[in-house]
Amino acid sequence: MVSRRDRANAVRALCMDAVEKASSGHPGAPLGMADMAEVLWRDYLKHNPANPSWADRDRFVLSNGHASMLLYALLYLSGYDLSLDDLQDFRQLHSKTPGHPEYGQTPGVETTTGPLGQGIANAIGMAIAEKTLAAQFNRDGHEIVNHYTYAFVGDGCLMEGISHEVCSLAGTLGLGKLIVLYDDNGISIDGEVEGWFTDDTAQRFEAYGWQVIRHVNGHDADEIKTALDTAQKTPSRPTLICCETTIGFGSPNKQGKEQCHGAPLGETEIAATRKALNWPHPPFLIPEDILEQWNAQKAGAEREADWNQRFAAYAAEYPELANEFKRRIQGDLPEDFAAKAAAYTAEVAVKGESIASRKASQNALAAFGPLLPELLGGSADLAGSNLTLWPGSQAITAADATGNYLHYGVREFGMAAIMNGLALHGGFIPYGATFLVFLDYMRNAVRLSALMRQRVIYVLTHDSIGLGEDGPTHQPIEQLASLRSTPYLDTWRPADAVESAVAWQAALQRKDGPSALVFSRQNLPHQKRDEAQLAEVKRGGYILSDCQGTPELLLLATGSEVALALCAQEKLHAQGRRVRVISLPCLEVFERQDKTWRDSVLPPAMRTRIAIEAAHSDFWYKYVGLDGRVIGMQGFGESAPAQALFEHFGFTAEKVVKVAEDLLMQSTHAV
Amino acid sequence: MVSRRDRANAVRALCMDAVEKASSGHPGAPLGMADMAEVLWRDYLKHNPANPSWADRDRFVLSNGHASMLLYALLYLSGYDLSLDDLQDFRQLHSKTPGHPEYGQTPGVETTTGPLGQGIANAIGMAIAEKTLAAQFNRDGHEIVNHYTYAFVGDGCLMEGISHEVCSLAGTLGLGKLIVLYDDNGISIDGEVEGWFTDDTAQRFEAYGWQVIRHVNGHDADEIKTALDTAQKTPSRPTLICCETTIGFGSPNKQGKEQCHGAPLGETEIAATRKALNWPHPPFLIPEDILEQWNAQKAGAEREADWNQRFAAYAAEYPELANEFKRRIQGDLPEDFAAKAAAYTAEVAVKGESIASRKASQNALAAFGPLLPELLGGSADLAGSNLTLWPGSQAITAADATGNYLHYGVREFGMAAIMNGLALHGGFIPYGATFLVFLDYMRNAVRLSALMRQRVIYVLTHDSIGLGEDGPTHQPIEQLASLRSTPYLDTWRPADAVESAVAWQAALQRKDGPSALVFSRQNLPHQKRDEAQLAEVKRGGYILSDCQGTPELLLLATGSEVALALCAQEKLHAQGRRVRVISLPCLEVFERQDKTWRDSVLPPAMRTRIAIEAAHSDFWYKYVGLDGRVIGMQGFGESAPAQALFEHFGFTAEKVVKVAEDLLMQSTHAV
Repeated sequence: MVSRRDRANAVRALCMDAVEKASSGHPGAPLGMADMAEVLWRDYLKHNPANPSWADRDRFVLSNGHASMLLYALLYLSGYDLSLDDLQDFRQLHSKTPGHPEYGQTPGVETTTGPLGQGIANAIGMAIAEKTLAAQFNRDGHEIVNHYTYAFVGDGCLMEGISHEVCSLAGTLGLGKLIVLYDDNGISIDGEVEGWFTDDTAQRFEAYGWQVIRHVNGHDADEIKTALDTAQKTPSRPTLICCETTIGFGSPNKQGKEQCHGAPLGETEIAATRKALNWPHPPFLIPEDILEQWNAQKAGAEREADWNQRFAAYAAEYPELANEFKRRIQGDLPEDFAAKAAAYTAEVAVKGESIASRKASQNALAAFGPLLPELLGGSADLAGSNLTLWPGSQAITAADATGNYLHYGVREFGMAAIMNGLALHGGFIPYGATFLVFLDYMRNAVRLSALMRQRVIYVLTHDSIGLGEDGPTHQPIEQLASLRSTPYLDTWRPADAVESAVAWQAALQRKDGPSALVFSRQNLPHQKRDEAQLAEVKRGGYILSDCQGTPELLLLATGSEVALALCAQEKLHAQGRRVRVISLPCLEVFERQDKTWRDSVLPPAMRTRIAIEAAHSDFWYKYVGLDGRVIGMQGFGESAPAQALFEHFGFTAEKVVKVAEDLLMQSTHAV
Repeated sequence: MVSRRDRANAVRALCMDAVEKASSGHPGAPLGMADMAEVLWRDYLKHNPANPSWADRDRFVLSNGHASMLLYALLYLSGYDLSLDDLQDFRQLHSKTPGHPEYGQTPGVETTTGPLGQGIANAIGMAIAEKTLAAQFNRDGHEIVNHYTYAFVGDGCLMEGISHEVCSLAGTLGLGKLIVLYDDNGISIDGEVEGWFTDDTAQRFEAYGWQVIRHVNGHDADEIKTALDTAQKTPSRPTLICCETTIGFGSPNKQGKEQCHGAPLGETEIAATRKALNWPHPPFLIPEDILEQWNAQKAGAEREADWNQRFAAYAAEYPELANEFKRRIQGDLPEDFAAKAAAYTAEVAVKGESIASRKASQNALAAFGPLLPELLGGSADLAGSNLTLWPGSQAITAADATGNYLHYGVREFGMAAIMNGLALHGGFIPYGATFLVFLDYMRNAVRLSALMRQRVIYVLTHDSIGLGEDGPTHQPIEQLASLRSTPYLDTWRPADAVESAVAWQAALQRKDGPSALVFSRQNLPHQKRDEAQLAEVKRGGYILSDCQGTPELLLLATGSEVALALCAQEKLHAQGRRVRVISLPCLEVFERQDKTWRDSVLPPAMRTRIAIEAAHSDFWYKYVGLDGRVIGMQGFGESAPAQALFEHFGFTAEKVVKVAEDLLMQSTHAV
């Protein structure tokens, strides 16, 4: 008879053999967590290997992502579209089994993990999504949204600060369907954690309002099962199950030690482990009877069929809701959104308000929000400054999750990683806000939004020294460079309310990646555009104001500096110069335009160029080259009223004119 | 008779009036914390206003830095070099009273705060410094290092993840002389925190092993005093004092509400507050008797004189130790360090090892470590990967703080902010390590190292796709751009063991700012240099290999790509091309060289340039311009063995040659 331990050992064997074959990887954690995984995946997890995107599946997140082989082994054994060959290709170029789990590369991988602490945050985002979606869509007798979110976490995740941010919030929100299994093995890379990690983790989580189940033997299936049952019986609080495990379980000479954490066990030790585990089978061979017991295809198909039937009954009673559910899960915007958004932008252009772009952002939210119930907003305790609340905003709370707004608290990193979880779950377009400078706090989660190509919208206000008195700690300098160097991220820095509306529309319509919307604290003057120009904003870069004849100088600017460029242009025109002003609200979008467009805006031969942006200068040499000039920031800002700072740091029309004259003189004298 | 409340109200009046005058700032927190501050600063704080850099002063950190006016009022009243005029200049350009406390701008400000959670981390770094310095220098009967570190923290600090990282570690390290006063006012910017922050904070800190004193009335001086006494009586554990306060205390209509947090109270409310507080004095006038009671100049001078006397006794008994103490507090390196370091580099050059630069870094540590007892190392749980341990490394523990190494655990952000505290305290040069990609986690603390111009050394290994199988989550792409856009930070990416040694020497000798040392996981070939070139490495950029005659192509590279450039040069020379290879290990240092040097390395007229670096491309256009090319990364990496990745992403000599041929052909055809 196949025992639970045999099934767990199948996982262990696959993991140690794949790591060995790759000559690289982490065998210790998978060997330690195999028994926990066996119970959870075989007895509890509601999923269908044939359809990894079934909307109501349970979500499983491996927060300690270096244990990736555990997940790959589980997916293979359960019957996902992942073969033995794939496992043997572990960590090879373009395989379905990369070193850490990567969303989009492997069927059944729910999120990209590896950067510690973020997986549990994603899981909390998924659990919030489930709770909110259920509150919005379920009806009496119709529980079409009803699934658990499970996560495995290790010591590393729990040392990371983000675990505090998100687990605290999970407690406040009462996420009863979140069940976290803590792989408490007492080992991290530097050795036995008691030298640097002596928290009473159970007590800590109780302080967050969680249900905590202590001292579960992580190698005893019955104890794990009892704990999971208890967890499921507590609908009002998230549960942490503390599973005491031995890292590298089964490896006679390396278990319980750091040695088995991040390197192959080696041939000799693998042989010894086979013997110790009573696993006589050769590498990558799983006996049929064990395979059969693991296979979840049939059960999965039945589960989904059952749900489909229930969804059909729901659809019969609530056809509109059912259609709306499908639309949101598919991530499609309402059909008329594009037209309505364009109409709104046209209105804004006519209105011509000179307002802060953060205010323009709020106006756009007020216009688009009613059209998009999938919008799920929030701010890291700066709602009134970021202007992320609109009239339809309603807070999501433990008691009432029908809302569309999260008060994230002062938790930037947690917010960003939760947004990734919300987006991955489906049914929502999350936006979340903080000051641009605090992008730093959440930088790696923004990176993961981009790596996973998720539609997450970052609202980053107070975008330059223009925020004034709060001083250099609050004035972003490096952050635009950081955003723009992030692959697949679109960064918008609008010059006025019109560009702000276009930026919001673009971010909402973009299905294949995140956007950063960078807004000013201070008012920005409205810019006049003809109809053609209005349509050109969405190209990310366009001629906002040209001269008669061929320009002899190009002024490139974004955001608040566009008005400055126009002012300098006027002065230079008065001197008889020919100056073109180019607004570049989104360089990534601009770079995706065809060459004809790009060259028409920025003719390659026109080399007398000045870029103006109140941020670090270096980036702009890409557009002005060795012969151009950049009016930007070199050092940090200062604390003073905004106008004093712009003058102090040389963001004045006079300075631009002076640099322009200098540059024009120089290029006249050049060959 | 002047009461405690009168003295506290003097603080309140100065704060509300200064915010009003600036039309900007945060009155609520100062009004709420004034009573706590009165007790601490008047009855406990050991300091000397005449000498803010007295080595054994107590440290005070205002972690909720937006309450800056509280600190300025305290400094003024205590008799620091800060005048009433300075207070009236609150938040004005180049004043000594910027919007948030800034180290170096105001006498008595121990660290720059504002970015929440980092102040408490700095304080923990200072407390570690005190404990370690005491263990290293105190002798029986001679307690020359013996001071407390106090911090005020708010709800925001405690929501931030970094507070978990550092307070957990503070518990493990048993920092008994760290005393933290929690301003528990129940309000954050979004309103009453119960909607997003429901932690049992006392229980949470008990889980970290802290002594927690609950339910202290933050407006009752006796209760605060009792709590501080209890805290001082517990030498083995840090103490958290939970002070229940009313934000905006004294403001009849705004106290207890978010309204008073971040905006001036307004004239009418200020008048009402004056009445409620029974404070009839006009703005910025503090009655003489109150001033006198606050003034700490005499007591401070006595305290320091006493210490000086005790230090003299110590010096008499332990003259060498005393000199060493002075040297370390002044931050001077040993006199012979520069010569010995240069000799070591020369040795490395002769030895000519082809090793990973992370290994070369470890070798440099082993060479310099014995010369520098002030070196205080560490890694965020990656010691064996970052190679930050050297034979003289000894862990600092709760029981024994004589060591020189901190096992920070998986706490990157906490590590960086603690290093800032260590550096600010004095007596140490901290270095701390993680993978380059996880710079993201600690980004804002690196920024603060730079803003405060602290000698903090970041060791960032696994510096590109060259780390291989761990995949895109672990492969830095944007991080070099992020580092290089940080003002006052020097970023070194050495090409071999020689450049690695020079980088370490430069970082150690640099007194006015932090350095990031970026090292490879994989081996890098040794490069031959003549004596002149060896001396040129420290210029940050130099010609590593030139051609006969005038070059027609410049190849610019850093780190692992330098060898690639040399290989391509060889091939191109074989084709009769004239190619110069320029190694640019540190662009910030290179930019600080005189123009003659820079132009001799990178002649402005030579425009046929290719930059090669396995990181995001954009930065390099600054050096190659619109006519050059960059061989870099556009997207994220992949999981595969390193060699496969370099080929896949085009970091091969063949690709460089191809790009070079293309570029040379193009420039021939150009005008």
